[in-house]
Amino acid sequence: MKKYIELSKEELIKEKNKLEKEFENVRTKGLSFDMSRGKPCKEQLDLSMGMMDILNSKSDLRCEQGIDCRNYGIVDGIIEAKRFMGLFMENETKNIIIYGASSLNIMFDTIAHCMIKGVLGETPWCKIPKVKFLCPVPGYDRHFAICEYFGIEMINIPLYENGPDMDMIRNYVENDDSIKGIWCVPKYSNPLGYSYCDDTVRQFALLKPKAKDFRIFWDNAYCMHHLYPNKKDQDYLIEIVAECERVGSPDMVYKFASTSKMTFPGAGLAAIATSENNIKDLEEQLRIQIIGHDKLNQLRHVSFFKDIDHIIAHMMKHANILRPKFELVFDTLEKELSSLGIASWTKPKGGYFISFNSMNGTAKEIIKCCAEAGLKITPAGATYPYHKDPNDSNIRIAPSFPELYDLKEALLIFCLVVKLVSIKKIMEK
Amino acid sequence: MKKYIELSKEELIKEKNKLEKEFENVRTKGLSFDMSRGKPCKEQLDLSMGMMDILNSKSDLRCEQGIDCRNYGIVDGIIEAKRFMGLFMENETKNIIIYGASSLNIMFDTIAHCMIKGVLGETPWCKIPKVKFLCPVPGYDRHFAICEYFGIEMINIPLYENGPDMDMIRNYVENDDSIKGIWCVPKYSNPLGYSYCDDTVRQFALLKPKAKDFRIFWDNAYCMHHLYPNKKDQDYLIEIVAECERVGSPDMVYKFASTSKMTFPGAGLAAIATSENNIKDLEEQLRIQIIGHDKLNQLRHVSFFKDIDHIIAHMMKHANILRPKFELVFDTLEKELSSLGIASWTKPKGGYFISFNSMNGTAKEIIKCCAEAGLKITPAGATYPYHKDPNDSNIRIAPSFPELYDLKEALLIFCLVVKLVSIKKIMEK
Repeated sequence: MKKYIELSKEELIKEKNKLEKEFENVRTKGLSFDMSRGKPCKEQLDLSMGMMDILNSKSDLRCEQGIDCRNYGIVDGIIEAKRFMGLFMENETKNIIIYGASSLNIMFDTIAHCMIKGVLGETPWCKIPKVKFLCPVPGYDRHFAICEYFGIEMINIPLYENGPDMDMIRNYVENDDSIKGIWCVPKYSNPLGYSYCDDTVRQFALLKPKAKDFRIFWDNAYCMHHLYPNKKDQDYLIEIVAECERVGSPDMVYKFASTSKMTFPGAGLAAIATSENNIKDLEEQLRIQIIGHDKLNQLRHVSFFKDIDHIIAHMMKHANILRPKFELVFDTLEKELSSLGIASWTKPKGGYFISFNSMNGTAKEIIKCCAEAGLKITPAGATYPYHKDPNDSNIRIAPSFPELYDLKEALLIFCLVVKLVSIKKIMEK
Repeated sequence: MKKYIELSKEELIKEKNKLEKEFENVRTKGLSFDMSRGKPCKEQLDLSMGMMDILNSKSDLRCEQGIDCRNYGIVDGIIEAKRFMGLFMENETKNIIIYGASSLNIMFDTIAHCMIKGVLGETPWCKIPKVKFLCPVPGYDRHFAICEYFGIEMINIPLYENGPDMDMIRNYVENDDSIKGIWCVPKYSNPLGYSYCDDTVRQFALLKPKAKDFRIFWDNAYCMHHLYPNKKDQDYLIEIVAECERVGSPDMVYKFASTSKMTFPGAGLAAIATSENNIKDLEEQLRIQIIGHDKLNQLRHVSFFKDIDHIIAHMMKHANILRPKFELVFDTLEKELSSLGIASWTKPKGGYFISFNSMNGTAKEIIKCCAEAGLKITPAGATYPYHKDPNDSNIRIAPSFPELYDLKEALLIFCLVVKLVSIKKIMEK
């Protein structure tokens, strides 16, 4: 097939009529598919069912520190849980606090702490007229929602294959003391699937912020979430906490991770890694907020995973389930759309998403039409602050949850809709 | 023995010398006892070991709503967990949100929400020059710590056997719009063990606050925590959420409870109960903060407890372990101190604490001397805002954690120290 823009008016009308008939046909079937969220599928959850048996009423439920994990105590997490999270976060136990099950919750609470108490004794952000965050885009909708909740102004920063635009970031961070933070998903980013190159990470560490209380919010959500077994097909990242320490800015970064997409989302472990100063500062909040998080679940995770080899092997089982789904997306998009000149997409080697760009001004309409045909996709604009995609073109594809067979059908509907909406857009002109 | 104040100077010196010798004897033994926190003991934790087996890899881990509890979803708690918490909180599921494991965490987060977003659209508290809370005293140290963290000014309110001084409360709440909240532990209060009478609860519901965003923080921590099996020896409370609704002030109360002292502290369930308006308001925060709390632990609790009969039976097993400890405290204090006229104490029928009043100006010294003799007690002043006990006389006794034999020894040390410090105080005059 030729590119759509090269078609004659007659050819366009003919193609449009054909697509409309197909769409009508699909629409009336009353199908229901969901590609909206980065949720693991059932088979992935089954991989961790051993967790349900690993502790029982005969188990010794004391941690290494000798504390009974069934009782109060240890606000910052048992030492073996810190060691476990440290294995794949690549941080030392002294730099880690274990929280509950959700890293999103830690990010929210950390910003709440900055708002109410201020960072390491600086003025609380709620007492400052304007607090701004830099947001590499497209990005994670829940990060942006946190900023909106706290009334933090967001500034878009373009995100490229090697990381965000560092010149722009440096310019903002080093000249404007109302810039207090930046959201980063440095590895297999949501939704692009890009990973920051070494130079990007080094440039982050070398930032000299005008605001003493500027912090990098480094959400390493997909640190272990490769799709391919071969090391050369996996992205690697310079460890940011150590890098910041090495160049003399140890306090500049808060790093987050969780086991949500390793074991059970919502019932895993989440942790922050940061400098010892920041740890002390955050523990001031933590000690008031809670007596201690769920140590039994900490023990459960430690017992289940044992060591780094088990973690890697476990994550490769996840990869084996996810990879065919990602490849199905790549293949289907390639086959259905690549020749038409109406869309582009990323081909990540890990993470949970594929970022799809339709023709400018069509994303909203595509997602609306998909919904009519029974296919739920993340709302248009979600990947941008304030839900405002300036080009109305970015669509986040989340292939993990549906079964392969359903995913195939869903993708065909998606491609059909993309074609139809694109042709209409072209004919408008 | 006569009252100490009736002793002659010679008798006092003789008694003091005797006590000092005994104290020296104890001090050199290098003992170690802890009566500082309201922690369940090992035998109590063992009561819930069935929880460790109730779910396993063969279990159906879907909730009634059909959602896989291993995955993301359901931000406010599974319906059966709401029903379970509602059984002993005496609230309807529509008035309940299930959070993580800690009710303290809910209180902290709720106040954070009031600070940042404001209550139901009112001005956020962080934008108001002065926010004040009323604090019935003596009270729970962690409540006061939350206020200190958020910079909320605390005002002491005397707490009597039937509840706090309602005239004083009414006067503050109805005339000063900077009064935004009050901390209540309405049943078996911490540390006094008092329960609010019906009239007190009704007067609370009938408050007409000057500030629209005034809220009662009703921490019903010990709602099921009776010490005695006989109904006539148990305290009962009018349910506050329903009462506030009945008199036309449905939004005035946030009520909190958890299973921390029913199952495993730190690994239980915690919930808030409040009006539907407040639920909606709090869910606005919750939805940004987290994707969902641990639903597997919710399922675990529901499966373990089944129904209200099981809950009551389970709590009676706790009572059977705790009652002898409380009675040992009552008996020992009675035997050692009652005739000396140097102390008074409460005799709660439930909860986790006994409140002890030494002679004015001696509590700090008593706790310091206890520490020297190897007995750890909650720091003096902890039961008052800003750690300032105006009389330096209140001491919180937490008898739950030590074994009976150790508790006996610990109490004897305590009584010895109380006598010695009191006699010194009397001789100073």
